[in-house]
Amino acid sequence: MTETIQKIVEAIRQSRSVLITSHEGPDGDAIGSSLGMAAFLRAVGKQVVVHLADPVPELYRFLPGAGLVRGDIPDQSFDLAFVLDVGEFRRAGKQFGAFTRIGQTINLDHHLTCEQFGSLNLIDEQAAATGLLVWRIAKAFGFTADYDTALCLYVAVLTDTGSFRYSNANREAFEAAGELVEQGGLNAWTVSEKLYESQPRKRLELLAMALPTLEFIRNGQAASLVVTLDMYATTGANAELTDGFVNYPRSVAGVEVAIFLRQLEERKFKVGFRSKGAVNVATLAQAFGGGGHHNAAGGTVDGTLEEVKRIVYRAVNEAAW
Amino acid sequence: MTETIQKIVEAIRQSRSVLITSHEGPDGDAIGSSLGMAAFLRAVGKQVVVHLADPVPELYRFLPGAGLVRGDIPDQSFDLAFVLDVGEFRRAGKQFGAFTRIGQTINLDHHLTCEQFGSLNLIDEQAAATGLLVWRIAKAFGFTADYDTALCLYVAVLTDTGSFRYSNANREAFEAAGELVEQGGLNAWTVSEKLYESQPRKRLELLAMALPTLEFIRNGQAASLVVTLDMYATTGANAELTDGFVNYPRSVAGVEVAIFLRQLEERKFKVGFRSKGAVNVATLAQAFGGGGHHNAAGGTVDGTLEEVKRIVYRAVNEAAW
Repeated sequence: MTETIQKIVEAIRQSRSVLITSHEGPDGDAIGSSLGMAAFLRAVGKQVVVHLADPVPELYRFLPGAGLVRGDIPDQSFDLAFVLDVGEFRRAGKQFGAFTRIGQTINLDHHLTCEQFGSLNLIDEQAAATGLLVWRIAKAFGFTADYDTALCLYVAVLTDTGSFRYSNANREAFEAAGELVEQGGLNAWTVSEKLYESQPRKRLELLAMALPTLEFIRNGQAASLVVTLDMYATTGANAELTDGFVNYPRSVAGVEVAIFLRQLEERKFKVGFRSKGAVNVATLAQAFGGGGHHNAAGGTVDGTLEEVKRIVYRAVNEAAW
Repeated sequence: MTETIQKIVEAIRQSRSVLITSHEGPDGDAIGSSLGMAAFLRAVGKQVVVHLADPVPELYRFLPGAGLVRGDIPDQSFDLAFVLDVGEFRRAGKQFGAFTRIGQTINLDHHLTCEQFGSLNLIDEQAAATGLLVWRIAKAFGFTADYDTALCLYVAVLTDTGSFRYSNANREAFEAAGELVEQGGLNAWTVSEKLYESQPRKRLELLAMALPTLEFIRNGQAASLVVTLDMYATTGANAELTDGFVNYPRSVAGVEVAIFLRQLEERKFKVGFRSKGAVNVATLAQAFGGGGHHNAAGGTVDGTLEEVKRIVYRAVNEAAW
């Protein structure tokens, strides 16, 4: 791995122009690692373009360089392209997939299944965030983080570790956070405030309507929350703002599986499951043609709220755990 | 400071029996630093008693050694006493205050105003948690953290930095967290699950009743939440479970001051303010004989809910900010 990093450092030194991209539907790590890499490379004198197939979500627009992210790719050649956090090459989007004016493509990722599509591939599934791979490279380059680089990479680590709460929050994640906070002169609270203390008013109003729907089943081993079309109409909120709602039923002692029923149409609900870890919810979701991972899965069920509850609750009650 | 640490290490080496205590109404840092110190000292062969004036809250009973915490002090002499995180000596409680069979008292604290009541005083207001001062000592002793020590000290840091979100989350806090996670073989998620994903069902049910009381005033610069005696009656929850509720109104974009109105009696409310940082709420609280700090303050107001709201909202509306 050290050898790959050295080769990447060498490639950076010999480059003048760099294109950076990440996956569609970018999250905090995709954006933080891309903008952190861009800030670092700009600081050491490179010409940098960041291209993302989808726009930077509102939540991350405060990050330095977010305003320079391009939805297109300019008509020029690049010595290097960094492809960050994509898992599969096609997730970088169609435009990048078709773009050929690149000297060398470098792939940085922490997904277990990442394809080796780069001429250099730094893939480490032990890394809590792709932003940490960028930080390894910047350090090997001899770079001391400035404010912009530190902030972007810190956000990459912070968001991909769920504010240092997930099991991927390992020594490297904490150590890098400490280095970035110190070198960049960051204030952890200022960053948290942007990310966790700035929710739209409508979201909290929607939560206020959703929480009273809380129901416990299976002797409190599972709990559900419902959001209906009526609630959107009353609050002016939309489905995007329900992100994270399923964490509320999950956060109760004794609850192993949280269920989130989100109305899509008059007689259609999106069913989302979250597990605390002991129960495989992918299996649960398969009961109605859904799918997912061990800890997060879901599907779609047709019917009124009462009908959907009957189907979903039965599956939960009958599941072996 | 290094010299003080060396003297403390020497005192530990020369001791056989150690008494450890912390402040009344112990929080995560009080308990984590006490139990972490105890685990470390037991691991290096000392006879250790942990005494706390108040019981260990349910939330922290999973910590190793929590079951050995004593409300009394045994009738024996101790070579050393460690007093952790107390700020003022009297906060260690009456029993400890009256106890004299101690060879040497060592004071570890990170409160700015801590009294120098020990024969050795390690006071550093830059330390995010008193648990970090314990960790400095253990490291200077040459100790590699075992699981018990690591878990307790990690919880001290985690809770006093608000899960690494407060401005005190500095390089040392992150670095120590990384060392503790690695040396103790901790899983950050397992710890978070205990602390943040195990709330009593009644608490979430109480929140579900409280959230619909959400009101925005001053063009959305302030927001309030109410908990009434009726809500306790319906949910079976109590005032202790409202801890953290004020974070909900505070978490909204544009809100600078969050107001929490908690009914104490038919015609009496506890008023709590939280500021995001820009507004000094200590001044606000003084309007009704209350007090507090820049970011957290409060007081008590007599009246019905409507009367109390009128008084409090007027103070908020008229405050200069």
